[in-house]
Amino acid sequence: MPQYQAPLTDMQFLLHDWLNLESHYQNLGLQDFDQELVNEVLSQGAKFAEQVIAPLNREGDEQSCQLKDGKVTTPEGFAAAYHEYIANGWNAMLGSAEYDGQDLPYSMAVPVHEMLNSANVSWRLISMLTESAVLAVNKHGDKALKNTYLKQLISGEWTGTMCLTEPHAGTDLSLLSTKAQPLEDGSYSISGSKIFISGGDQDWTDNVLHLVLARLPDAPEGVKGISLFLVPKFLVNSDGTLGQANTLSVGSLEKKMGIKACPTCVMNFDQAKGFLVGAPHKGLACMFTMMNDARFQVGLQGLGISEASYQGALAYARERLQSRAPQGSINPDGKADPIIAQPDVRKMLLTQKALTEGCRALSLLYATQMDIEKNADDDFAKHDAASVLAFLTPIAKGFMTDVSQEVSHLGVQVYGGHGYIREWGMEQLSRDSRITQLYEGTNGIQAADLIGRKLSRDDGHMLTATLKLLQGLISKINNSDAASQAAAILDEWHKLSWQVKKQPAIDLAGAAYDYMHYSAYSILGVLWLSMADRAQASDNQSIKEGKKSTCAFYLKRILPRKELYKTNLLNDASDLIDVADALFDYQ
Amino acid sequence: MPQYQAPLTDMQFLLHDWLNLESHYQNLGLQDFDQELVNEVLSQGAKFAEQVIAPLNREGDEQSCQLKDGKVTTPEGFAAAYHEYIANGWNAMLGSAEYDGQDLPYSMAVPVHEMLNSANVSWRLISMLTESAVLAVNKHGDKALKNTYLKQLISGEWTGTMCLTEPHAGTDLSLLSTKAQPLEDGSYSISGSKIFISGGDQDWTDNVLHLVLARLPDAPEGVKGISLFLVPKFLVNSDGTLGQANTLSVGSLEKKMGIKACPTCVMNFDQAKGFLVGAPHKGLACMFTMMNDARFQVGLQGLGISEASYQGALAYARERLQSRAPQGSINPDGKADPIIAQPDVRKMLLTQKALTEGCRALSLLYATQMDIEKNADDDFAKHDAASVLAFLTPIAKGFMTDVSQEVSHLGVQVYGGHGYIREWGMEQLSRDSRITQLYEGTNGIQAADLIGRKLSRDDGHMLTATLKLLQGLISKINNSDAASQAAAILDEWHKLSWQVKKQPAIDLAGAAYDYMHYSAYSILGVLWLSMADRAQASDNQSIKEGKKSTCAFYLKRILPRKELYKTNLLNDASDLIDVADALFDYQ
Repeated sequence: MPQYQAPLTDMQFLLHDWLNLESHYQNLGLQDFDQELVNEVLSQGAKFAEQVIAPLNREGDEQSCQLKDGKVTTPEGFAAAYHEYIANGWNAMLGSAEYDGQDLPYSMAVPVHEMLNSANVSWRLISMLTESAVLAVNKHGDKALKNTYLKQLISGEWTGTMCLTEPHAGTDLSLLSTKAQPLEDGSYSISGSKIFISGGDQDWTDNVLHLVLARLPDAPEGVKGISLFLVPKFLVNSDGTLGQANTLSVGSLEKKMGIKACPTCVMNFDQAKGFLVGAPHKGLACMFTMMNDARFQVGLQGLGISEASYQGALAYARERLQSRAPQGSINPDGKADPIIAQPDVRKMLLTQKALTEGCRALSLLYATQMDIEKNADDDFAKHDAASVLAFLTPIAKGFMTDVSQEVSHLGVQVYGGHGYIREWGMEQLSRDSRITQLYEGTNGIQAADLIGRKLSRDDGHMLTATLKLLQGLISKINNSDAASQAAAILDEWHKLSWQVKKQPAIDLAGAAYDYMHYSAYSILGVLWLSMADRAQASDNQSIKEGKKSTCAFYLKRILPRKELYKTNLLNDASDLIDVADALFDYQ
Repeated sequence: MPQYQAPLTDMQFLLHDWLNLESHYQNLGLQDFDQELVNEVLSQGAKFAEQVIAPLNREGDEQSCQLKDGKVTTPEGFAAAYHEYIANGWNAMLGSAEYDGQDLPYSMAVPVHEMLNSANVSWRLISMLTESAVLAVNKHGDKALKNTYLKQLISGEWTGTMCLTEPHAGTDLSLLSTKAQPLEDGSYSISGSKIFISGGDQDWTDNVLHLVLARLPDAPEGVKGISLFLVPKFLVNSDGTLGQANTLSVGSLEKKMGIKACPTCVMNFDQAKGFLVGAPHKGLACMFTMMNDARFQVGLQGLGISEASYQGALAYARERLQSRAPQGSINPDGKADPIIAQPDVRKMLLTQKALTEGCRALSLLYATQMDIEKNADDDFAKHDAASVLAFLTPIAKGFMTDVSQEVSHLGVQVYGGHGYIREWGMEQLSRDSRITQLYEGTNGIQAADLIGRKLSRDDGHMLTATLKLLQGLISKINNSDAASQAAAILDEWHKLSWQVKKQPAIDLAGAAYDYMHYSAYSILGVLWLSMADRAQASDNQSIKEGKKSTCAFYLKRILPRKELYKTNLLNDASDLIDVADALFDYQ
């Protein structure tokens, strides 16, 4: 596998040409940010990703993490890379200036996050969760809590974790049993065991802040009786120095299929001191601030892995000489042609490319909506952006990670048997990608969220706001054929969405996954037509022609997938429900 | 994951009720084999798979294989299990009676092979290749060679390997450079390096027989200059005892994504003594005897893994309590419902079930054709069966392994985050399954073989023979709606196949993967309609109802996939070919 190279040309085309970032910033009053600054941040981010963390990725997978005498050790070089990361301010990109953050627009940070994920998703996971923790503490914590923890969390001096899952409570958080007892000093005593805690401990920082869901003694049953607590590994003295160790520990590290260089911990809280975040019993809503961010970020992990896999496959397909091309030799002096000449290999590569670049466009469009939600003066604009984000979050998470599994699968396939050998790195991408479909809510849960909540609630406003955003893109398409093709895709999706919305809950549950994919392929169709049209005005010939041909490929060979999902959308779920449980096997 | 249990009820239904095995045997003059004997072999095979090798599977993955001082060590218990396997005659099931084999019909052995693969595909791989080596030696070796090696290969006292691939010659064997020099005693001196040699060495047997492709000094260039040699690890004295060690060695073991308990060796041959198998320069054809068998057997690996994954997912879905079912609680006294109540989970399980059982039907139908090819008196029947096998081999390999990747993927998904943890075993199935799409010719190569050779050559006879076989199944369907639905599927497939066949080679290459999947989903549709119809006459209520509901699911939710593949079948490949190589990335 070749050294990762950040796809700066594509990112800059999308941000500046396609999304017109400077005028977007001006509209939001973000005068400090211009094209030059964006490009500078991107190019510095690329350097860090390419030169510092990408080289650690393969060896990190082999070394994985160790737990000895209660202490976690991460692979060689990981801690040093993290120290460089925070020293250069990368962790603080999005943090509030009030707590020494840089308050950069999301649209500047998101492409950098993609690069980090391409380079080393195991390494990235801890700082990713820290950023999500910042959001929850910033939005729901009281002043004292923020003053004690937020600066260090934003700078990355301390890291954050998300402690939801328990052995018997994963998807269904109503079952969680970790307990919180109020103490006289206004803090709480937290007891219970949490599993699947990414970065539950590490050898990078002096402190770790756990955001823990637990039940107060008087809590109502179910999800309405869950509260959120910040539980630090080391208690913090009033002068900000670290005090005594809290009564929590790492029970064990999970042995996993992938992301082996990230410590996934069983965390035991044994009357550990914790601090309430937000109101009692409102913890789930507070945690959702963290979780929604994490869901999008997991989508970005998927995107990052897709890009890395495509780069690996493309390089190999260009250099691996086997057989002759059916259309005539392209390397007549060599013993064989590079396999990129084979139509079937080209189809795999173009599938990777069309999906990866489509997801990148989606991620950056999403980032601009985050900018608007955070910075717009206009409350309606803010609300619309929030509605778009709500609608697109399960798609970004569910679809971009499903894509990454497909794309990294194809990456292995292009390498043939060599793809299965660890040293090439292609199979690692596929294993690392696999977790993204499972954590932060499985993709089935994302699909259920999309069809059951996002589509149905709020009188369809989330759908309408998303429609409006996409119509805006279509209105800027110059080529009239492309514009009507995009409008037709959007129109069909919109109409079908309203029909789907009327179905009973059981049928929605049966059609959820189909609806998520139908929507995603439709939306990507609009994005491709819009991008390819914009690319025709580009000075860069490879952008101009490359976007055009990849769009044609998407429309011809990928978009038809939506028809398959469509067939099941309006089906009732009777065939699923009516099968007696006993019939799943034979007696 | 639960202990594996062989799906005996389904196998017996398929063999006896659906395929009417006894009358099939009578037609072939195989009077010794009746229902009772078949069931006895199946149930003993099940016992071995369930009790001896399945318990070694998880730990084998953790231990993997070691190479020390040139010797390979396999995981604990693997050698002992193999000794039990050969002591009980399992290795000799298909071997010729002339060399102490049991000459069982394939239709008795194939279900046992499926079980071995479900239980432990890493362990199974070596005996699988040994069986394929038996075929090549038996068919192409001269009397002396057979007398020296065949008994031990059939009994399993010695194992066999397939040495094709070299670092620069995988798909394209014309590039291979291993050399064979004739020696005065009529043997050959073999020098070269081979990679990806499964079971290149092991600690199970005293000898290993390598079937090696190499070039003679006067060999024409390309694939027409390749000869096949048998190169033993230890030379065999004229009295049958083992003599001196041959000059070959294991260079290294590959570190792989999965099948870690099977040693995948780099083999170095350094003027090693070898013996010609078949005629000079005709080695590729001889190797294809071995490879075609191995391709089907790899398909069976896929099937075995699919079954194991389905069993794991089903057990977990029944016991894992999370959330309430949208159709009303099915466990009102418990804290939550088992997730099998969720429509999306049911959809995943039924997808696993419909695909796995469909592939099992295909594998057993295939096995009956192997019986006919081997045992029929009638040359026309033999030729037709051989034609069907030729057509179905790339489908059995390519499709059944693609299915196993999907099914084992879904198995992980049903477990949520727990699916990613090694101890549950679900992710291992997914990793083990991944190789089946890559080795013995990638699935892209299978697709190219199907559309480029099997469909096109021999004036369409392979297609026609397959059509006839499937028409025969349809003619026995009692329900007239089911019969006409099956006929319509078959008719469309047949007509489209002839249209596809007329396309130019470049377009065939572009449509190959689509054609393989379109064909497979169509064929499985016919098999499902036929099976479900036959099940209605079964006394077993779970077979009767279970096949009916699973068939309905297949027709409603899986069969429509063929429409997607169909859209690309008659497309030209211009969009693939016309993209300039430089446009695959941006400058």
